[in-house]
Order: sequence, then C-alpha cells, then structure tokens
Amino acid sequence: MSGRLYDALFAPRTVALVGASDVRGKPAARPLEFLRRHGWAGDVYPVNPTRTSVLGEPAWPSLRALPAVPDHALVLTPADAAVAAVRECAELGVAVATVVADGFLASTADGARRRAELREIIDGSALRLLGPSSLGVANPVRALALTGNAAFAETSLPAGDVFVASQSGSALGALLSRGAEMGLGFAAMVSTGNEFDLSLGEICRAAVDDPQVSSFALFLENLSGADELAAFARAAAEQGKPVIAYKLGRSEDGARLSALHTGALAGDDAVADAFFRANGIARVTTFDALLEAQLLARRVPPRRSAAPARVAVVSTTGGGGAMAVDCLAAAGVAVTPPGAATVARLEALGVHAGGGALVDLTLAGTKYDTIKAALDVLLAAPEFDAVVAVPGSSARFTPEVSVAPIIDCADASTPLAVFVVPSAPDALRLLRQKAVPAFRTPEACGDAFAAVFGRRELGLAGPVTTVAPHALVTALDEDESYAVLARAGIPSARRAVVSVADLPGELPVPAPVVVKVLSSELAHKSDVGGVVLGIRDAGELEDAARRIVDGVAAARPGFVVERLLVQQQASGVAEALIGFRRDPDVGPVVLLAAGGVLAELYRDRSVRLAPVTLEQAREMVAEVRGLRPAAGYRGAPKGDLEALAAAVVAMSRLALATDPVVVEAEANPVLVRPAGEGVLAVDAVCVVGETVVETVAR
Amino acid sequence: MSGRLYDALFAPRTVALVGASDVRGKPAARPLEFLRRHGWAGDVYPVNPTRTSVLGEPAWPSLRALPAVPDHALVLTPADAAVAAVRECAELGVAVATVVADGFLASTADGARRRAELREIIDGSALRLLGPSSLGVANPVRALALTGNAAFAETSLPAGDVFVASQSGSALGALLSRGAEMGLGFAAMVSTGNEFDLSLGEICRAAVDDPQVSSFALFLENLSGADELAAFARAAAEQGKPVIAYKLGRSEDGARLSALHTGALAGDDAVADAFFRANGIARVTTFDALLEAQLLARRVPPRRSAAPARVAVVSTTGGGGAMAVDCLAAAGVAVTPPGAATVARLEALGVHAGGGALVDLTLAGTKYDTIKAALDVLLAAPEFDAVVAVPGSSARFTPEVSVAPIIDCADASTPLAVFVVPSAPDALRLLRQKAVPAFRTPEACGDAFAAVFGRRELGLAGPVTTVAPHALVTALDEDESYAVLARAGIPSARRAVVSVADLPGELPVPAPVVVKVLSSELAHKSDVGGVVLGIRDAGELEDAARRIVDGVAAARPGFVVERLLVQQQASGVAEALIGFRRDPDVGPVVLLAAGGVLAELYRDRSVRLAPVTLEQAREMVAEVRGLRPAAGYRGAPKGDLEALAAAVVAMSRLALATDPVVVEAEANPVLVRPAGEGVLAVDAVCVVGETVVETVAR
Repeated sequence: MSGRLYDALFAPRTVALVGASDVRGKPAARPLEFLRRHGWAGDVYPVNPTRTSVLGEPAWPSLRALPAVPDHALVLTPADAAVAAVRECAELGVAVATVVADGFLASTADGARRRAELREIIDGSALRLLGPSSLGVANPVRALALTGNAAFAETSLPAGDVFVASQSGSALGALLSRGAEMGLGFAAMVSTGNEFDLSLGEICRAAVDDPQVSSFALFLENLSGADELAAFARAAAEQGKPVIAYKLGRSEDGARLSALHTGALAGDDAVADAFFRANGIARVTTFDALLEAQLLARRVPPRRSAAPARVAVVSTTGGGGAMAVDCLAAAGVAVTPPGAATVARLEALGVHAGGGALVDLTLAGTKYDTIKAALDVLLAAPEFDAVVAVPGSSARFTPEVSVAPIIDCADASTPLAVFVVPSAPDALRLLRQKAVPAFRTPEACGDAFAAVFGRRELGLAGPVTTVAPHALVTALDEDESYAVLARAGIPSARRAVVSVADLPGELPVPAPVVVKVLSSELAHKSDVGGVVLGIRDAGELEDAARRIVDGVAAARPGFVVERLLVQQQASGVAEALIGFRRDPDVGPVVLLAAGGVLAELYRDRSVRLAPVTLEQAREMVAEVRGLRPAAGYRGAPKGDLEALAAAVVAMSRLALATDPVVVEAEANPVLVRPAGEGVLAVDAVCVVGETVVETVAR
Repeated sequence: MSGRLYDALFAPRTVALVGASDVRGKPAARPLEFLRRHGWAGDVYPVNPTRTSVLGEPAWPSLRALPAVPDHALVLTPADAAVAAVRECAELGVAVATVVADGFLASTADGARRRAELREIIDGSALRLLGPSSLGVANPVRALALTGNAAFAETSLPAGDVFVASQSGSALGALLSRGAEMGLGFAAMVSTGNEFDLSLGEICRAAVDDPQVSSFALFLENLSGADELAAFARAAAEQGKPVIAYKLGRSEDGARLSALHTGALAGDDAVADAFFRANGIARVTTFDALLEAQLLARRVPPRRSAAPARVAVVSTTGGGGAMAVDCLAAAGVAVTPPGAATVARLEALGVHAGGGALVDLTLAGTKYDTIKAALDVLLAAPEFDAVVAVPGSSARFTPEVSVAPIIDCADASTPLAVFVVPSAPDALRLLRQKAVPAFRTPEACGDAFAAVFGRRELGLAGPVTTVAPHALVTALDEDESYAVLARAGIPSARRAVVSVADLPGELPVPAPVVVKVLSSELAHKSDVGGVVLGIRDAGELEDAARRIVDGVAAARPGFVVERLLVQQQASGVAEALIGFRRDPDVGPVVLLAAGGVLAELYRDRSVRLAPVTLEQAREMVAEVRGLRPAAGYRGAPKGDLEALAAAVVAMSRLALATDPVVVEAEANPVLVRPAGEGVLAVDAVCVVGETVVETVAR
C-alpha cells in the first residue's frame, strides 16, 4: 500500500550494515546493537571486509557476497568508501541506500567530486539515496532502528502514529525521548541529512498513505526542497493528516540580499511563514508544541475563515486558568466568555460563569459530575471553536480521577484540550493515550492553538504553471517598468518620456508634474538629484531639466542624462509598497507594505506565495497595520483598498507572466486614492529575465 | 535574625488551626494532615467548638481555651466566623492570622462590612493578617505546610533556597510540584490572597535577610502593592538576591481608560514592564523560566549597560545547538561567535570553530577532556558574558558522565548554563544540584537569559518625594498647559491668546500662524472645526476666527467660542509624543512615542517610571523605532534628539512638582527640530489636581 520506496525506507525485510563495527558502543556498531536490542524481525547482514563476524554475528566481506540483495543498505563507512558502497548498491538492485558520512559539501573539492559520482550512480539506476549525512531511519511499530544515532539506545521504542522527519539528526533523537516521556509514539522517524536525492518532502509524501500514520512532525532547518514539501503537504491535506513544523531561523529575520527593497522587507522567515500558510502546514514556535500539537491538529480541520479561534477556558484552579487565558490570548486566540444561554445552563449546574473569559469551577466543586456537566455545556455551546480544561493539583495526586470527566467528553464534536497546571506526567500520559490534546506549559498550549487553528483550507489544488527566470537578468527603466505593470493590471500616473536635447514646448501631461531622470542605471534617483517636483509649465520644465542634468553630473561623474520622465503629480490618502520576487527556495512571493520608512522600521508587511486570489489579497491588506488609517481608522479618509487588493493580485500574477519573465518588481509608492478612485503607482522598477517555464504546485 | 513577622509567618513554634475539620480529605482537615505528614516539630492546636478531638488529636473549643498563645493562627472558617477568629487573635496577642475564606470583596455589602471590621481590628492591635483568600504558607526547610492547598499533599516538601510568593494559590501549588520535578527546593512559599494587610512586597521584604533565601520567585496577578514591592526589590538588590517575576496580563495590553492619549498608549503591561525594570526585577514570560532562571540570576549581577548579553553557544549536537541559538537570538540575546584568539585556542584543541555563532564539538568528540578544555577556553574568553552548553543524547543515557565537565567548569567567573536537548530529567537535576542553571526547553532558556541579563544596576537608592493628586482634578486649556510645561522645562511654539470680540489689528506672533479655539472643554479641536492653519495677516486671522466660531457652533451647538490661541507655525524633522500620567498602582510614569497615528497602530513607545535621568531618557529615545529617521536612519535629516531626551526628563519630573500637581500631561506633537535647534511642543493638555504629598521609593 505504501509503495516500494516507503517499504524499503521504513519496512525493509532485509538490511545491510556496510562498515559495521565489532567494537560495541562505536557509532558504526550501534545499528546492529539497536536492531538486536529492539528485536527487529528482519534479516541483518553486517558487511565488513576485514572480519568474518561482528558483535558475535556472521559478517560478509562485501555487498556482493551477501546471500540476498538487501532492501535497504545503511552505509556507515567514511565518504569515499561510502560512494563505492552506493555504487555497489546500485549495481545489485538495492532499493535504498542511506549514507551517514559527511564530506559531500559542494563547496569543497572532494565533496564536489563525490557529489558528481553520486549523481552519476543515482541517475543511472533505480537506487534511491537517503543522505549523505543522514542519521538513518526508525520504525518503532516494527521495532526497527536502522541508525547509529545514540538517541536510539532506549530500552524500547515508543510505537505510535506520529511520523517524524527531521533535517537535524540530533533533533530526531530529542523528539524520540521527549515523545516517549510525553506518552506519544511514532509510526516512523527519518533523518534526511543533505537530501542529495530523497528530499524530506518526497519521503513524507511516501508516508501519507500509510494507515499507521495519523499526522506529521517536521523539524526543518531550511526549505531547500520546497516544491516536494508542498506536494507532500497537499497530499497530506487531502488525506486529512495534519502537518506541524518547527523551523529554525526565526531570529535570522535579516534581509536577503536583493536588488530591490522587497527582498529586504520580505525576509526569509516571513517567506517561510508564507510557504507554510499556503500549504496548510501549522508552524509552531515552541519545541514542545511540535509533538504536543499533534493530537490537537487531528481534531481541528483546516478552517475557511481567517477569524481567530474562539476558545473557552474552564478551570478548577483560578491562577492556572488565568495562565492559560493569558498565553492563549497572547498567541492571538480569542478567549471567549460564554454567551447568555451558556451562562444560564452553567448556572443551572451551580457554576457561576458571568465574570469574564475564565469559567471557574472552583466554587462549584471538582467532582466528576460537576466537571463533566460543565464541559458538556461548553462543548455544546455554539460560541466556541474549542474548549481548554485546566485541572489543578488533583491531576497530580489522583490522575485517573482528575482526567476522567475530560476523557469522557473527548468525543464531542468540539475539540477539547487540556493544560495541566502542576507537574503531573501521569495525567498528561493518560490524556494522550485517549487522544486528548494535553499541554505541559501554557506557552506551548497557546502556541499550538494559534498554529493549528491558523491552518486554512487549501484552495483548488493542482499545479500552477509559473515561470522561472534564466540567470541573465535586466533591470528596466521606470517607463518600461510601468509598461510591464500596466500589462499586469497595475495602473500608474500619466507620464511621458522627453529628451533632454529636445524638450517639448509645452508640458506633455497636465500640470503639476514631477520630472525624473530616466535610466535603468540609477536606482536611487532622489539621492543623485534626479527628481524635481511641482513643475507647472514648459519653462519650469526647462529649469528642472537643467538642474537634473547638473545634479546627476555632480553626483555621478561621467553619467550623462539623456531622457527624463515627466509624470503627473498625484496624491492619495495612503501610500503602499507592492513587491514581487522569486525566492530561491519557495518561488514567487508577493509582498504588501505600507509606504514610507516607518513601515520598514516596523517590518509591517504581509507576504504570500504568488499568485494570490482577491480574497487572499484582501487579507493581506487587512494584515498591514499601517494601512488601517486608509480603512477609516480614527476617522481618517477612506482609501480605495479594494483597488489596492486588486493591484496586489495583479502583481502576484507576474508569477505566471512570460512576456517578459519578471524576476523582481516593485511599485513604491503606490498611491491609494479615495474610495472608488483606484490606486496609482508613482515609482516602479522591474527586473526581467529570460524565460524558463517551470511547474510548481500551488 | 529575620524578625518577628517573618518568624511568625514561616517559622512559628506554635500554630492554631481554627475550624479544623475531623473529616479527612476536607480542605479544613488538610492543614493538620499536612503538618503531621511532613513531620513539623512545633505545637499544633486544632480549634473546633463542636469537637474535643480532630483526626485523633485533642481539639480546643476556642482560641481563648488554648494552653498557650499561638504564633500563627490559620483560620479555616467561613468569612464571618473568620472575622470573629481574627478579633480573638488580636485580643490574645497572636502575631499572624491567615484567613483562607473568600467573601471580602469591597464591591459587595457583606464584603465591605467584613473589611471594615478587619480594618478596625488590625488598626487597633499588633496582629498582622495574611489574606483573606490566602491558601497559607509553607516552609519546606522546617517541614511546615500551614495550608489546606491540596498541592501540599506531597510525600515530602522540597527544601531549598528559593522563596516563592504568589498572588495565586493554585500557581503556588504548581510551582511546588514543578520545582520538585526540576530538583529545585524552596526556603518558603506564601499565597498572599487579597493582601488586605500584609502585601506580597512586605512579606518578601521580611524574607530578604534570611540566609536560607538565595533568590525570589514571584507569581503576580497585579501590582496593587507596588510601593512595598519596590522597597522589597531594592532591599533584595542590596543583598544581591535576585528577584524573578511572572506576571499575568501580557495579553490585556488594552488601554486603561484615560482622558488622554498617553493612557491608551502606555497600556498596563508596558507600565508593569517599566516598574519591573526600574526595580531590578527580572520579568520572565515562560512559566518554566520563573524557576529555571533562579540559578542563572544568582550568577549574573545587574548590569550597567543596556547592551544585549553576548553569549557563546557550544554544542555536541548540531540541531540542538541551533535551537538554542535561535531561541536566544529571538529573545534579544547577542549570540556571539568566538573571536580570532578564541578560535585559535579552540583549534589547538582540535575544535573547529570558525563557522558561525555555534561552536560545534561533534567532530572533536564528546569526551570529558575535550568538552572541559573547550568550555575552559570559552569561559576565559573576554568576548562572552555567558556560555550556554548544549549536550545531546549522552545527557539522557549517561547523565553523570555528560554533565561532569560542565559541573567542573561551573565555578568560572563567567556564568555557564545548559540547555539539555533530549528528555533528560536526571541530568537536569544533577546540574541544578550543583547550582548550574539548566533549561528543559530552548524557549525558557532564551526567556531566562533575556530577563536576567536585562536587569540593570539600580540608581542611587532612596525614596523620592513624589506627589499624588487629590480626586478633584481640572483640565487646563492649551495656553495654561503650555505654561505648566514651560515651567517644567518643555518649550513650545510662540503664542498669544486673543479675544474673538476684540481681534488685534496685526498678528501677535510672526506669520505664518495657526489659529485654534481655546477652551479646556474641547478636547479634539480639529474634529469640531476649531483649527485653521497658514494664517499670514490680520485679515486672514479675522476670516479664520469667523470660520472657527461658525464651525464650532455647528459641531457643538450651544458652545460659544470666546478666545483663540494664535501660535506660530513651526516644522521639525520628526514628531513625538511625550506623556505623563499617574498609574494607580505604580505611580508616575513617563511615555515617549513617535508622533502620528502609525506609532499608535504599532504601539511604538517607551515607558518608564517617573522621574527619569537624562541617561534613561536617551535610552527611551533609542527604543522608539519611529524616531530612528531623526537619528539619521537611511540618510534622513538628523533631529535634536538630545533636546527631546531633555524634554522627556522635564516631563517626567512633573512627578515631583507641587505647583500645580499634574495628574496627566501630554505634549503631542512635539516637533523635533534639526540638531542643535531644540524641540517645540505645538499642542498640549494638562490635567491638574489638589496636592497630596506622598513618598515612594524610586
């Protein structure tokens, strides 16, 4: 059912251990130790050219000498020997080889040579390669630990239904032990290493159909295999199997080098957020929540609405309940007091609940019947998307009693989760055994709720043809850039190009106008004296032309101004920046920011994968705080934000345009005119490239 | 040594249990059960008017009937009986009575009556009252659990040197069990309840001199006893005993109702942050860190500089180390790569460390000698304020071996802390037993570092006389407000007051001028048509006056405009808002924000307790992102930010002014003129009150 790749990776019948060591405790000896310790039932072939036995078991001198072709070879040797072993695997028809060795960085001479050899081997065979620099795989359900990762020296492997894929081997080990402590188990675990052949996305894609797998936990260091990750996430969404990711790099929100402002404003981490959002992946920011959110995510389908989740918090312990309220609200969840009908139903139970967001059962008592009845009322109330129960000391001393009413309510259609206030590992495990989402800290609870309820229904699936530029790129001048944007559907102010040598006798567009030096070589026109505002007639135009010619000559010796752009001056009730660029990992992205230096200082922007729908563009407009005045905030004049959203859609659809292929584009500022009067770009720059058509899943 | 209050609270020789129940398991039976279970050595007197024995021990019918006067009476009865018991305590000379009952809210008739009775009893005696609504106290060192809090039904109480005070009884229980799980112990614990008499601050102040107490953990729901909390924090700072606080209410950053903008912009939580900062209290935002940061804080004295802490991260597990780097950096800590000399010393050990912020020991090996030597190098390097070690799986499987090199380095003058990547409770406990700060999650690690290294040296201690307003308050008009600000030292634009009935024949201040309606009754002058800009001569002034009179009449029927303010128009390179208000809990605060609606939308402001020094005001200027353009960001013209800082100091010193006593003040906007040209307030409002002089510790 799961396919040959998946079986070879996680359910092999025979494995070879190439370079297996006879010295107990050494990394190259551990895989055999782990396979025996955990009682894996398949056939193991240690391969060691210098020994006839390894750890008391027969060993073979080479892969060729084995009595059968293994499904999966774990290659434990150093890099060059590993390449030779991979070649043998390919020749013999091994399905998957996992390479543990380092030494395959493209930036070193030896690494580049080895990569070339691996490429040739893989391209010429059916062999699939995991790694290099992979710490291996495990399948606790089958008692398989095909890894030298010291973390698998557990007395037993926690079997379950979470699939873990990690770009970090050590994080995999941490998840193994932390999951076991939590009472969560794993269907399979994989350390993806360098992803030279098999990407994390492709491996996870192969696991989507496994009925043993209920949900996914991803530990990511980068988004290098974004297309396959996206394809996997969509397949998982179709199966209703949630994907939760923890990604490093939140702190490195520094700018990616870019010709345009858009790059700096977008930032790598905002692009990653846009990627996760577009693909229905819930991103958590606390390590605990990567596992703790699994059970919650299974109860919460992706949502249609962008509205915050409405959550009831019910507690038998005031301070603990208040912590949950605080952390949920700080994460952006709408902690919601019960409505009048619900209050009345609670009062009938002796629960006084009119006092605020927290429903406190302390006075009503902590008996099973009271708690069960109150939970039933809250879970049936239409005003809540979920209920969080917060038990106190009883969860520590009488865990079975404490969690009983919660477990007995857990089948309600409204999801019920738990934050346990004291140290109460037994209660947490009991809850999780019954598939009730349970949290050890209020912070992980808030994080998980925000991430899980933030998942949105994916649009119509299916690949969209986007285009990728060739390396040869050309910056367009402002006039050409407006033309590209106009074709895309983004209007700009009226303009004309005039020659300095042949200025017109009257203004080519109605006064007042702004006059700007026109050249693709001058990125910052104002900085070189290349812009003059408020020109009202041909005489002033002549003066302005002279000032620009002289100013640019002074600022940029040798640069001769030949052409000027004459543009009608316009005003708006707000200014915005709309940008487009192609991220090397995730592909085209569109960005909307408020105009001006403050938006940049506040990093106030919204980023999405491109193209976006009008509905998505409206959400982007709503997300940019600096645009709220244009929505009438504090009585400010309203701007045409609907036209701004349309312009964002238009910009985003540059992802699909082939004539030309736009590498980066930025309209900045875009004047947002009064409602009904549209938007106007009054500065713009585009960088175009040669066309290469690619297809990415969107 | 610790004083009578402290001994009666935490080290009584005799205790009475008023209302002790004979029904095992009932809350009122638990104190006796807990005292016996934990083996407290003092004398216990159960008081129960209806029984001669309780849980098999002799009981007395009343406090008066006891064979001796107890040091501490725990009153377990309902509210009215509790008041009677407190009266008896006062009459008998009991030192401390702790009242568990609810029912003392001032907002209910019964509650108000009981409060009045308690007040009269306390004012007329030497008795000190803990509560009402206190869950009691514990002293694990003396095996004392004088509480009915179910959380104390532990088999043993973790004794140690952390003092815990909590406004939430249930949080106290959570800290008890979580501390025990962590391997941390407590010198004493107290649930402060309603703080009707004894405030959390006063109780902690009494504990500062106890040599058993090394540091403090506070769980706060509000800052109602701010003055005593501040006095305690300063006393703790003098003893070098750190104070760490977790405070609810981060999410309720909504505005406090206020006549002025300043109130809404400040927000309760920002005021709380200002309070903690001013008093050297480290505020953590993760619950784990409230205890986990204790050991770190003992190693890190308050700092003179505002610069971020420079921290080295050294790991034997790449992904785990990267998590620590990410969380530390996200919290604002400067994760710092080793300098050239340190890299050379590490290379000599076989540790390759030129690659970035993380020093990865994986390749060099995880032997004791290598780790110890690398830690020694890092701890001796001058470029680090602290070192974080990140062990991997070995911490789980061989905890003693894994933590040995860390513990052997822990006496270095540079603090050394640990984030343990796998689930490894034994390693965490071993480290903490040796006083090495150890963290279970990377998030708590980052949080603790930011909070602990954010503590600043306190200025010259000692009380500052500030003034508190009487309830009778008066809003001043704009002209009067400028006069108040001018006396404080905040300049404003040239102005004159003119009468509508007798307009001057020429402009009273140089053109151009702005003309504004002058009245303390019109808060939003522009909204009612009360402002006209760009007036150049007396004729235009006459026109403007007519428009204002007509406009205000239309907008506010019945309001007759009598006076106008004529103010010279000015411009600046930036605009700011400087505000002052008196928080009901923490007292005078000063606020600085960038001008305009965006600063409000972005909540971009800096808040401090008032008064501030010039150095503090400069820090505030640096904190407001919207003012960065005025510091020359991206080539913007520089503004006189030094004059702005001076104006902030001047505004903050309204805390001390008595003529008049200013309740609230706001200068908005304050024009920041080019460097060297100062600042000018061009709108202002002050609210003044009657004088009551108070003294608060600052």
